[in-house]
Amino acid sequence: MEVTKAVITAAGRSQRGLPVQALVDRDGAEKRALEVVLDEAVEAGAEEVCLVIAPGDAAAYRAAAGPHAGRLTFVEQPEPLGYGHAVLLAREFTAGRPFLHMVSDHLFVARGATRSAKQVADLARAEGCAVSAVQPTRERALRFYGAVGGRRVPRRPDLYEVQHVLEKPTPSEAEQVLSVPGVRAGFYLCFFGIHVLTPAVMGLLAEQAARGAEPLALSPALAELARRERYLALEVAGQRYDTGLKYGLLTAQLALALDGVDRERILAQIIDLLAQRG
Amino acid sequence: MEVTKAVITAAGRSQRGLPVQALVDRDGAEKRALEVVLDEAVEAGAEEVCLVIAPGDAAAYRAAAGPHAGRLTFVEQPEPLGYGHAVLLAREFTAGRPFLHMVSDHLFVARGATRSAKQVADLARAEGCAVSAVQPTRERALRFYGAVGGRRVPRRPDLYEVQHVLEKPTPSEAEQVLSVPGVRAGFYLCFFGIHVLTPAVMGLLAEQAARGAEPLALSPALAELARRERYLALEVAGQRYDTGLKYGLLTAQLALALDGVDRERILAQIIDLLAQRG
Repeated sequence: MEVTKAVITAAGRSQRGLPVQALVDRDGAEKRALEVVLDEAVEAGAEEVCLVIAPGDAAAYRAAAGPHAGRLTFVEQPEPLGYGHAVLLAREFTAGRPFLHMVSDHLFVARGATRSAKQVADLARAEGCAVSAVQPTRERALRFYGAVGGRRVPRRPDLYEVQHVLEKPTPSEAEQVLSVPGVRAGFYLCFFGIHVLTPAVMGLLAEQAARGAEPLALSPALAELARRERYLALEVAGQRYDTGLKYGLLTAQLALALDGVDRERILAQIIDLLAQRG
Repeated sequence: MEVTKAVITAAGRSQRGLPVQALVDRDGAEKRALEVVLDEAVEAGAEEVCLVIAPGDAAAYRAAAGPHAGRLTFVEQPEPLGYGHAVLLAREFTAGRPFLHMVSDHLFVARGATRSAKQVADLARAEGCAVSAVQPTRERALRFYGAVGGRRVPRRPDLYEVQHVLEKPTPSEAEQVLSVPGVRAGFYLCFFGIHVLTPAVMGLLAEQAARGAEPLALSPALAELARRERYLALEVAGQRYDTGLKYGLLTAQLALALDGVDRERILAQIIDLLAQRG
Protein backbone atom coordinates (compact mmCIF):
# COMPACT_ATOMS: atom_id res chain seq x y z
CA MET A 1 0.00 0.00 0.00
CA GLU A 2 1.37 3.39 -0.98
CA VAL A 3 1.01 6.34 1.41
CA THR A 4 2.17 9.61 -0.14
CA LYS A 5 -0.61 11.99 0.85
CA ALA A 6 -1.27 13.52 4.25
CA VAL A 7 -4.30 15.33 5.64
CA ILE A 8 -3.63 17.61 8.61
CA THR A 9 -6.56 19.22 10.37
CA ALA A 10 -5.97 22.74 11.68
CA ALA A 11 -9.43 24.27 11.50
CA GLY A 12 -10.41 23.99 15.18
CA ARG A 13 -11.53 27.47 16.23
CA SER A 14 -9.86 27.17 19.63
CA GLN A 15 -6.59 26.15 18.00
CA ARG A 16 -6.17 29.04 15.58
CA GLY A 17 -2.69 30.42 15.83
CA LEU A 18 -1.13 27.23 17.20
CA PRO A 19 0.62 26.43 13.88
CA VAL A 20 2.47 29.77 13.97
CA GLN A 21 3.86 29.31 17.48
CA ALA A 22 7.65 29.48 17.60
CA LEU A 23 9.60 26.45 18.83
CA VAL A 24 13.15 25.19 18.84
CA ASP A 25 13.27 21.63 17.52
CA ARG A 26 15.38 18.79 18.93
CA ASP A 27 18.14 19.59 16.44
CA GLY A 28 18.32 23.16 17.74
CA ALA A 29 16.62 24.68 14.67
CA GLU A 30 14.09 27.49 15.20
CA LYS A 31 10.78 26.62 13.54
CA ARG A 32 7.07 27.27 13.74
CA ALA A 33 4.97 24.49 15.25
CA LEU A 34 3.51 23.74 11.81
CA GLU A 35 6.94 23.04 10.36
CA VAL A 36 7.63 20.54 13.16
CA VAL A 37 4.36 18.74 12.36
CA LEU A 38 5.12 18.79 8.63
CA ASP A 39 8.64 17.39 9.26
CA GLU A 40 6.95 14.45 10.97
CA ALA A 41 4.57 13.88 8.03
CA VAL A 42 7.26 14.24 5.38
CA GLU A 43 9.63 11.89 7.16
CA ALA A 44 6.77 9.36 7.16
CA GLY A 45 6.67 9.60 3.37
CA ALA A 46 4.08 12.33 2.72
CA GLU A 47 4.81 14.11 -0.55
CA GLU A 48 1.66 16.25 -0.69
CA VAL A 49 -0.13 17.62 2.35
CA CYS A 50 -3.67 18.96 2.58
CA LEU A 51 -4.15 21.39 5.45
CA VAL A 52 -7.78 21.89 6.52
CA ILE A 53 -7.97 25.37 8.02
CA ALA A 54 -10.35 28.04 9.24
CA PRO A 55 -11.03 30.69 6.56
CA GLY A 56 -8.31 33.31 6.30
CA ASP A 57 -5.39 31.38 7.80
CA ALA A 58 -3.74 30.17 4.57
CA ALA A 59 -1.16 32.96 4.17
CA ALA A 60 0.08 32.83 7.78
CA TYR A 61 0.24 29.04 7.77
CA ARG A 62 2.05 28.91 4.41
CA ALA A 63 4.65 31.28 5.87
CA ALA A 64 4.97 28.99 8.92
CA ALA A 65 5.55 25.87 6.83
CA GLY A 66 9.23 26.56 6.14
CA PRO A 67 10.68 24.33 3.42
CA HIS A 68 7.41 22.38 3.12
CA ALA A 69 5.31 25.30 1.84
CA GLY A 70 5.43 23.93 -1.71
CA ARG A 71 3.77 20.65 -0.66
CA LEU A 72 0.69 22.32 0.81
CA THR A 73 -2.87 22.37 -0.48
CA PHE A 74 -5.29 24.40 1.65
CA VAL A 75 -8.97 23.57 2.14
CA GLU A 76 -11.08 25.91 4.24
CA GLN A 77 -13.73 24.67 6.64
CA PRO A 78 -16.22 27.57 6.56
CA GLU A 79 -18.14 26.49 9.67
CA PRO A 80 -16.96 24.41 12.66
CA LEU A 81 -19.03 21.35 11.73
CA GLY A 82 -16.83 18.76 13.43
CA TYR A 83 -13.55 16.88 13.19
CA GLY A 84 -14.96 14.27 10.78
CA HIS A 85 -16.29 17.08 8.60
CA ALA A 86 -12.80 18.60 8.46
CA VAL A 87 -11.31 15.28 7.37
CA LEU A 88 -14.07 14.77 4.77
CA LEU A 89 -13.25 18.15 3.21
CA ALA A 90 -9.97 16.57 2.03
CA ARG A 91 -11.78 13.81 0.12
CA GLU A 92 -11.06 15.29 -3.29
CA PHE A 93 -7.40 15.79 -2.34
CA THR A 94 -7.02 12.15 -1.27
CA ALA A 95 -8.52 11.02 -4.61
CA GLY A 96 -9.36 7.50 -3.50
CA ARG A 97 -5.90 6.83 -2.02
CA PRO A 98 -4.89 5.89 1.53
CA PHE A 99 -3.58 8.86 3.47
CA LEU A 100 -1.67 9.76 6.60
CA HIS A 101 -3.80 11.83 8.97
CA MET A 102 -2.43 13.94 11.79
CA VAL A 103 -3.83 16.69 13.98
CA SER A 104 -1.96 19.99 14.00
CA ASP A 105 -2.12 20.58 17.75
CA HIS A 106 0.00 17.61 18.81
CA LEU A 107 3.77 17.30 18.76
CA PHE A 108 5.42 13.93 18.98
CA VAL A 109 8.68 12.93 20.58
CA ALA A 110 9.67 9.38 19.65
CA ARG A 111 11.75 7.26 22.02
CA GLY A 112 14.03 5.85 19.34
CA ALA A 113 15.36 7.01 15.98
CA THR A 114 12.12 6.29 14.06
CA ARG A 115 9.60 9.09 14.37
CA SER A 116 6.07 8.24 15.45
CA ALA A 117 4.33 8.96 12.13
CA LYS A 118 6.89 6.89 10.26
CA GLN A 119 6.28 3.94 12.63
CA VAL A 120 2.57 4.13 11.72
CA ALA A 121 3.04 4.67 7.97
CA ASP A 122 5.63 1.90 7.63
CA LEU A 123 3.29 -0.55 9.34
CA ALA A 124 0.37 0.48 7.12
CA ARG A 125 2.53 -0.02 4.03
CA ALA A 126 3.67 -3.47 5.23
CA GLU A 127 0.20 -4.66 6.31
CA GLY A 128 -1.84 -2.97 3.59
CA CYS A 129 -4.51 -1.72 5.98
CA ALA A 130 -5.56 1.25 8.11
CA VAL A 131 -3.48 1.85 11.26
CA SER A 132 -4.06 4.22 14.17
CA ALA A 133 -1.35 5.11 16.66
CA VAL A 134 -2.55 4.54 20.23
CA GLN A 135 -1.15 4.91 23.70
CA PRO A 136 -2.22 3.22 26.95
CA THR A 137 -3.92 6.03 28.83
CA ARG A 138 -5.26 6.23 32.36
CA GLU A 139 -9.03 5.87 32.79
CA ARG A 140 -9.38 9.42 34.12
CA ALA A 141 -8.06 10.87 30.82
CA LEU A 142 -10.62 9.00 28.67
CA ARG A 143 -12.76 12.15 28.45
CA PHE A 144 -10.13 13.82 26.23
CA TYR A 145 -9.67 11.11 23.58
CA GLY A 146 -11.07 8.58 21.20
CA ALA A 147 -10.26 5.05 22.37
CA VAL A 148 -10.18 1.60 20.78
CA GLY A 149 -10.85 -1.94 21.92
CA GLY A 150 -9.73 -5.14 20.22
CA ARG A 151 -7.40 -8.07 20.51
CA ARG A 152 -3.67 -8.29 20.60
CA VAL A 153 -1.95 -9.52 17.42
CA PRO A 154 -0.06 -12.73 18.29
CA ARG A 155 3.65 -12.31 18.95
CA ARG A 156 3.45 -8.49 18.69
CA PRO A 157 3.34 -6.80 22.11
CA ASP A 158 2.63 -3.41 20.50
CA LEU A 159 -0.06 -4.30 17.93
CA TYR A 160 -3.84 -4.77 18.14
CA GLU A 161 -6.67 -5.57 15.74
CA VAL A 162 -9.27 -2.87 16.34
CA GLN A 163 -12.83 -4.10 16.96
CA HIS A 164 -14.43 -1.09 18.66
CA VAL A 165 -13.93 2.67 18.65
CA LEU A 166 -15.61 5.07 21.07
CA GLU A 167 -15.19 8.83 21.29
CA LYS A 168 -14.52 10.09 24.84
CA PRO A 169 -16.14 7.05 26.52
CA THR A 170 -17.21 7.06 30.14
CA PRO A 171 -15.19 4.72 32.40
CA SER A 172 -18.06 2.21 32.49
CA GLU A 173 -18.49 2.21 28.70
CA ALA A 174 -14.75 1.75 28.37
CA GLU A 175 -14.70 -1.13 30.86
CA GLN A 176 -17.49 -2.96 29.02
CA VAL A 177 -16.32 -2.47 25.43
CA LEU A 178 -12.69 -1.41 25.35
CA SER A 179 -10.89 -3.65 27.84
CA VAL A 180 -8.01 -5.29 26.01
CA PRO A 181 -6.34 -8.40 27.43
CA GLY A 182 -2.71 -7.58 28.12
CA VAL A 183 -3.21 -3.83 28.63
CA ARG A 184 -2.55 -2.76 32.21
CA ALA A 185 -5.67 -2.56 34.43
CA GLY A 186 -7.19 0.91 34.51
CA PHE A 187 -5.59 1.83 31.18
CA TYR A 188 -7.19 2.03 27.73
CA LEU A 189 -5.78 2.39 24.23
CA CYS A 190 -6.42 6.02 23.29
CA PHE A 191 -5.72 7.71 19.98
CA PHE A 192 -2.36 9.40 19.75
CA GLY A 193 -3.16 11.83 16.89
CA ILE A 194 -1.62 9.86 13.99
CA HIS A 195 -3.48 7.54 11.62
CA VAL A 196 -3.13 6.01 8.19
CA LEU A 197 -6.66 5.74 6.83
CA THR A 198 -8.05 3.98 3.78
CA PRO A 199 -10.41 5.58 1.24
CA ALA A 200 -13.30 3.70 2.86
CA VAL A 201 -13.15 6.22 5.72
CA MET A 202 -14.07 9.04 3.34
CA GLY A 203 -17.04 7.00 2.12
CA LEU A 204 -18.19 6.31 5.68
CA LEU A 205 -17.86 9.97 6.64
CA ALA A 206 -19.89 10.96 3.55
CA GLU A 207 -22.62 8.47 4.52
CA GLN A 208 -22.78 9.81 8.06
CA ALA A 209 -22.86 13.38 6.76
CA ALA A 210 -25.71 12.42 4.41
CA ARG A 211 -27.62 11.06 7.43
CA GLY A 212 -27.27 14.50 8.99
CA ALA A 213 -24.72 13.81 11.75
CA GLU A 214 -23.71 17.21 13.10
CA PRO A 215 -21.14 17.88 14.35
CA LEU A 216 -19.65 15.09 12.25
CA ALA A 217 -17.15 13.13 14.37
CA LEU A 218 -14.37 10.87 13.13
CA SER A 219 -14.67 8.06 15.67
CA PRO A 220 -18.03 6.65 14.45
CA ALA A 221 -16.56 6.30 10.95
CA LEU A 222 -13.53 4.50 12.40
CA ALA A 223 -15.85 2.25 14.45
CA GLU A 224 -17.61 1.28 11.21
CA LEU A 225 -14.25 0.85 9.45
CA ALA A 226 -13.28 -1.73 12.09
CA ARG A 227 -16.39 -3.74 11.17
CA ARG A 228 -15.62 -3.66 7.44
CA GLU A 229 -11.84 -3.83 7.06
CA ARG A 230 -8.75 -5.01 8.87
CA TYR A 231 -7.78 -2.06 11.02
CA LEU A 232 -4.75 -2.11 13.32
CA ALA A 233 -3.76 -0.06 16.35
CA LEU A 234 -0.04 0.44 16.99
CA GLU A 235 1.33 1.38 20.38
CA VAL A 236 3.98 3.82 19.21
CA ALA A 237 7.25 4.21 21.06
CA GLY A 238 7.01 7.87 21.96
CA GLN A 239 5.15 10.67 23.69
CA ARG A 240 2.57 13.11 22.35
CA TYR A 241 2.25 16.66 23.60
CA ASP A 242 -1.02 18.55 23.12
CA THR A 243 0.07 22.12 22.42
CA GLY A 244 -3.49 23.43 22.73
CA LEU A 245 -3.62 22.79 26.48
CA LYS A 246 -2.66 25.40 29.05
CA TYR A 247 1.16 25.21 29.34
CA GLY A 248 1.02 22.74 26.41
CA LEU A 249 3.57 24.71 24.40
CA LEU A 250 5.87 25.02 27.40
CA THR A 251 5.69 21.29 28.03
CA ALA A 252 6.23 20.43 24.36
CA GLN A 253 9.18 22.83 24.12
CA LEU A 254 10.76 21.42 27.28
CA ALA A 255 10.27 17.88 26.00
CA LEU A 256 11.90 18.73 22.65
CA ALA A 257 14.77 20.57 24.33
CA LEU A 258 15.43 17.91 26.97
CA ASP A 259 15.44 15.26 24.22
CA GLY A 260 17.68 17.25 21.90
CA VAL A 261 21.09 18.76 21.30
CA ASP A 262 20.52 21.64 23.76
CA ARG A 263 19.64 19.45 26.75
CA GLU A 264 22.55 20.62 28.94
CA ARG A 265 21.97 24.29 28.12
CA ILE A 266 18.28 24.07 29.01
CA LEU A 267 18.95 22.22 32.25
CA ALA A 268 21.43 24.94 33.22
CA GLN A 269 18.84 27.60 32.39
CA ILE A 270 16.17 25.95 34.54
CA ILE A 271 18.58 25.76 37.47
CA ASP A 272 19.50 29.43 36.93
CA LEU A 273 15.85 30.48 37.01
CA LEU A 274 15.16 28.41 40.11
CA ALA A 275 18.15 29.97 41.85
CA GLN A 276 16.98 33.50 40.92
CA ARG A 277 13.49 33.05 42.26
CA GLY A 278 14.52 31.10 45.34
CA MET B 1 4.27 65.41 34.34
CA GLU B 2 1.46 63.36 32.81
CA VAL B 3 2.22 60.09 31.03
CA THR B 4 -0.86 58.60 29.36
CA LYS B 5 0.50 57.62 25.96
CA ALA B 6 2.70 54.68 25.09
CA VAL B 7 4.69 53.86 21.97
CA ILE B 8 5.56 50.21 21.46
CA THR B 9 7.85 49.23 18.61
CA ALA B 10 7.05 45.92 16.90
CA ALA B 11 8.27 46.52 13.37
CA GLY B 12 11.60 44.65 13.51
CA ARG B 13 11.58 42.23 10.58
CA SER B 14 13.21 39.47 12.61
CA GLN B 15 10.58 39.86 15.34
CA ARG B 16 7.45 39.48 13.23
CA GLY B 17 5.09 37.04 14.84
CA LEU B 18 6.50 37.47 18.36
CA PRO B 19 3.44 39.47 19.55
CA VAL B 20 1.12 36.57 18.64
CA GLN B 21 3.04 33.94 20.60
CA ALA B 22 0.93 32.21 23.23
CA LEU B 23 1.94 32.48 26.89
CA VAL B 24 0.47 31.81 30.30
CA ASP B 25 0.88 34.85 32.53
CA ARG B 26 1.85 34.83 36.20
CA ASP B 27 -1.82 34.85 37.19
CA GLY B 28 -2.42 31.68 35.17
CA ALA B 29 -4.29 33.48 32.35
CA GLU B 30 -3.63 32.41 28.75
CA LYS B 31 -2.61 35.41 26.66
CA ARG B 32 -0.64 36.38 23.59
CA ALA B 33 2.76 37.97 24.22
CA LEU B 34 1.39 41.33 23.04
CA GLU B 35 -1.30 41.32 25.70
CA VAL B 36 1.34 40.72 28.40
CA VAL B 37 3.32 43.73 27.11
CA LEU B 38 0.17 45.86 26.94
CA ASP B 39 -0.79 44.86 30.50
CA GLU B 40 2.57 46.25 31.60
CA ALA B 41 2.00 49.54 29.72
CA VAL B 42 -1.57 49.97 30.90
CA GLU B 43 -0.69 49.27 34.53
CA ALA B 44 1.93 52.01 34.19
CA GLY B 45 -0.84 54.44 33.23
CA ALA B 46 -0.94 54.23 29.43
CA GLU B 47 -4.42 55.00 28.14
CA GLU B 48 -3.59 55.07 24.44
CA VAL B 49 -0.95 52.92 22.79
CA CYS B 50 0.69 53.39 19.39
CA LEU B 51 2.06 50.16 17.96
CA VAL B 52 4.68 50.62 15.23
CA ILE B 53 4.48 47.54 13.01
CA ALA B 54 5.63 46.04 9.74
CA PRO B 55 3.03 46.46 6.99
CA GLY B 56 0.23 43.90 7.10
CA ASP B 57 0.45 42.90 10.77
CA ALA B 58 -2.32 45.11 12.17
CA ALA B 59 -5.18 42.59 12.06
CA ALA B 60 -3.22 39.77 13.70
CA TYR B 61 -1.81 42.08 16.38
CA ARG B 62 -5.19 43.62 17.15
CA ALA B 63 -6.55 40.11 17.66
CA ALA B 64 -3.62 39.37 20.01
CA ALA B 65 -4.21 42.49 22.15
CA GLY B 66 -7.04 40.99 24.19
CA PRO B 67 -8.95 43.60 26.21
CA HIS B 68 -6.53 46.35 25.12
CA ALA B 69 -7.44 46.23 21.41
CA GLY B 70 -9.52 49.40 21.76
CA ARG B 71 -6.52 51.42 22.97
CA LEU B 72 -4.40 50.66 19.93
CA THR B 73 -3.33 52.96 17.10
CA PHE B 74 -1.25 51.29 14.39
CA VAL B 75 1.51 52.98 12.43
CA GLU B 76 3.28 51.00 9.72
CA GLN B 77 7.01 51.27 9.12
CA PRO B 78 7.20 50.54 5.38
CA GLU B 79 10.97 49.93 5.30
CA PRO B 80 13.30 48.76 8.11
CA LEU B 81 15.02 52.13 8.51
CA GLY B 82 16.05 51.72 12.13
CA TYR B 83 14.78 51.70 15.69
CA GLY B 84 14.86 55.50 15.99
CA HIS B 85 12.91 55.76 12.75
CA ALA B 86 10.23 53.46 14.19
CA VAL B 87 9.91 55.65 17.29
CA LEU B 88 9.81 58.82 15.18
CA LEU B 89 6.86 57.41 13.20
CA ALA B 90 4.79 57.83 16.38
CA ARG B 91 5.53 61.58 16.58
CA GLU B 92 2.06 62.61 15.47
CA PHE B 93 0.49 60.16 17.93
CA THR B 94 2.50 61.56 20.84
CA ALA B 95 1.38 65.10 19.91
CA GLY B 96 4.06 66.90 21.90
CA ARG B 97 3.45 64.91 25.09
CA PRO B 98 5.81 62.72 27.12
CA PHE B 99 5.30 59.04 26.42
CA LEU B 100 6.13 55.63 27.76
CA HIS B 101 8.22 53.65 25.30
CA MET B 102 8.67 49.89 25.38
CA VAL B 103 9.93 47.29 22.94
CA SER B 104 7.58 44.45 22.05
CA ASP B 105 10.14 41.64 22.23
CA HIS B 106 10.89 41.93 25.94
CA LEU B 107 8.86 40.60 28.85
CA PHE B 108 9.44 41.88 32.35
CA VAL B 109 9.15 40.09 35.65
CA ALA B 110 9.35 42.51 38.56
CA ARG B 111 10.73 41.41 41.94
CA GLY B 112 8.06 43.15 44.01
CA ALA B 113 4.42 44.08 43.52
CA THR B 114 5.14 47.14 41.35
CA ARG B 115 5.67 46.23 37.72
CA SER B 116 8.78 47.49 35.97
CA ALA B 117 7.08 49.99 33.62
CA LYS B 118 5.11 51.45 36.51
CA GLN B 119 8.31 51.96 38.49
CA VAL B 120 9.68 53.99 35.55
CA ALA B 121 6.49 55.94 34.82
CA ASP B 122 5.88 56.81 38.47
CA LEU B 123 9.41 58.17 38.77
CA ALA B 124 9.04 60.23 35.56
CA ARG B 125 5.79 61.69 36.87
CA ALA B 126 7.38 62.56 40.22
CA GLU B 127 10.59 64.02 38.77
CA GLY B 128 9.09 65.60 35.64
CA CYS B 129 11.84 64.36 33.33
CA ALA B 130 12.81 61.53 31.00
CA VAL B 131 13.68 58.22 32.67
CA SER B 132 15.17 55.04 31.20
CA ALA B 133 15.11 51.73 33.01
CA VAL B 134 18.58 50.20 33.21
CA GLN B 135 20.15 47.07 34.59
CA PRO B 136 23.78 46.43 35.58
CA THR B 137 24.97 44.13 32.83
CA ARG B 138 28.23 42.22 32.39
CA GLU B 139 30.79 43.73 30.03
CA ARG B 140 30.56 40.78 27.64
CA ALA B 141 26.86 41.51 26.97
CA LEU B 142 27.48 45.16 26.01
CA ARG B 143 27.27 44.23 22.32
CA PHE B 144 23.53 43.58 22.65
CA TYR B 145 22.42 46.82 24.29
CA GLY B 146 22.48 50.57 24.56
CA ALA B 147 24.27 51.66 27.75
CA VAL B 148 24.45 54.82 29.84
CA GLY B 149 27.05 56.56 31.96
CA GLY B 150 26.43 59.20 34.60
CA ARG B 151 26.52 59.89 38.29
CA ARG B 152 24.55 58.43 41.13
CA VAL B 153 21.76 60.59 42.57
CA PRO B 154 22.61 61.26 46.27
CA ARG B 155 20.83 59.02 48.75
CA ARG B 156 19.26 56.89 45.98
CA PRO B 157 21.10 53.59 45.42
CA ASP B 158 19.00 52.83 42.31
CA LEU B 159 19.01 56.20 40.51
CA TYR B 160 21.48 57.94 38.16
CA GLU B 161 21.66 61.19 36.22
CA VAL B 162 22.48 60.19 32.66
CA GLN B 163 25.42 62.00 31.06
CA HIS B 164 26.37 59.66 28.21
CA VAL B 165 24.59 57.13 26.04
CA LEU B 166 26.33 54.72 23.67
CA GLU B 167 24.76 52.04 21.48
CA LYS B 168 26.45 48.64 21.77
CA PRO B 169 29.78 50.09 22.98
CA THR B 170 33.02 48.13 22.89
CA PRO B 171 34.41 47.26 26.33
CA SER B 172 37.09 49.95 25.99
CA GLU B 173 34.58 52.65 24.96
CA ALA B 174 32.44 51.62 27.89
CA GLU B 175 35.35 51.72 30.32
CA GLN B 176 36.32 55.24 29.21
CA VAL B 177 32.86 56.83 29.05
CA LEU B 178 30.33 54.72 30.92
CA SER B 179 32.02 53.72 34.17
CA VAL B 180 29.73 54.77 37.00
CA PRO B 181 31.05 55.07 40.56
CA GLY B 182 29.19 52.60 42.73
CA VAL B 183 28.36 50.13 39.94
CA ARG B 184 30.17 46.81 40.35
CA ALA B 185 33.45 46.53 38.41
CA GLY B 186 32.98 44.94 34.99
CA PHE B 187 29.29 45.89 34.91
CA TYR B 188 27.61 48.72 32.97
CA LEU B 189 24.14 50.23 33.09
CA CYS B 190 22.38 48.85 30.01
CA PHE B 191 18.91 49.69 28.75
CA PHE B 192 16.18 47.39 29.97
CA GLY B 193 13.60 48.12 27.22
CA ILE B 194 11.42 50.63 29.11
CA HIS B 195 11.66 54.43 28.90
CA VAL B 196 9.60 57.52 29.55
CA LEU B 197 10.72 60.02 26.93
CA THR B 198 9.99 63.72 26.56
CA PRO B 199 8.84 65.37 23.31
CA ALA B 200 12.40 66.68 22.83
CA VAL B 201 13.38 63.14 21.77
CA MET B 202 11.05 63.34 18.77
CA GLY B 203 12.65 66.65 17.79
CA LEU B 204 16.15 65.18 18.10
CA LEU B 205 15.21 62.13 16.05
CA ALA B 206 13.73 64.40 13.35
CA GLU B 207 16.95 66.45 13.25
CA GLN B 208 19.06 63.33 12.92
CA ALA B 209 16.76 61.98 10.21
CA ALA B 210 17.05 65.32 8.35
CA ARG B 211 20.84 64.95 8.47
CA GLY B 212 20.41 61.62 6.70
CA ALA B 213 21.25 59.18 9.50
CA GLU B 214 20.30 55.74 8.19
CA PRO B 215 19.49 53.44 9.83
CA LEU B 216 18.24 55.94 12.36
CA ALA B 217 19.16 54.74 15.86
CA LEU B 218 17.57 55.83 19.15
CA SER B 219 20.70 56.02 21.30
CA PRO B 220 22.27 59.12 19.63
CA ALA B 221 19.05 61.06 20.27
CA LEU B 222 19.11 59.94 23.91
CA ALA B 223 22.79 60.97 24.16
CA GLU B 224 21.82 64.43 22.93
CA LEU B 225 18.83 64.48 25.30
CA ALA B 226 21.22 63.95 28.22
CA ARG B 227 23.10 67.11 27.18
CA ARG B 228 19.93 69.21 26.97
CA GLU B 229 17.60 68.00 29.73
CA ARG B 230 17.64 66.28 33.07
CA TYR B 231 17.48 62.59 32.18
CA LEU B 232 17.45 59.83 34.79
CA ALA B 233 18.28 56.14 34.71
CA LEU B 234 16.45 53.88 37.15
CA GLU B 235 17.76 50.47 38.13
CA VAL B 236 14.46 48.61 38.16
CA ALA B 237 13.81 45.80 40.56
CA GLY B 238 13.14 43.02 38.10
CA GLN B 239 14.31 40.89 35.22
CA ARG B 240 13.82 41.30 31.48
CA TYR B 241 13.47 38.39 29.08
CA ASP B 242 14.21 38.86 25.38
CA THR B 243 11.64 36.67 23.63
CA GLY B 244 13.35 37.10 20.25
CA LEU B 245 16.39 35.05 21.28
CA LYS B 246 16.64 31.33 20.68
CA TYR B 247 14.77 29.68 23.59
CA GLY B 248 13.73 33.22 24.61
CA LEU B 249 10.04 32.31 24.75
CA LEU B 250 10.79 29.16 26.76
CA THR B 251 12.87 31.14 29.24
CA ALA B 252 10.26 33.91 29.54
CA GLN B 253 7.46 31.37 30.00
CA LEU B 254 9.42 29.49 32.66
CA ALA B 255 10.20 32.76 34.45
CA LEU B 256 6.53 33.81 34.43
CA ALA B 257 5.38 30.37 35.58
CA LEU B 258 7.98 29.99 38.33
CA ASP B 259 7.06 33.47 39.59
CA GLY B 260 3.33 32.86 39.43
CA VAL B 261 0.37 30.93 40.76
CA ASP B 262 1.31 27.74 38.89
CA ARG B 263 4.84 27.45 40.29
CA GLU B 264 4.30 24.07 41.99
CA ARG B 265 2.56 22.58 38.97
CA ILE B 266 5.37 23.63 36.62
CA LEU B 267 8.08 22.35 38.94
CA ALA B 268 6.29 18.99 39.08
CA GLN B 269 6.06 18.95 35.28
CA ILE B 270 9.77 19.63 34.87
CA ILE B 271 10.62 16.81 37.26
CA ASP B 272 8.22 14.50 35.37
CA LEU B 273 9.89 15.29 32.06
CA LEU B 274 13.35 14.79 33.51
CA ALA B 275 12.29 11.43 34.94
CA GLN B 276 10.83 10.33 31.57
CA ARG B 277 13.95 11.07 29.60
CA GLY B 278 16.34 9.78 32.22
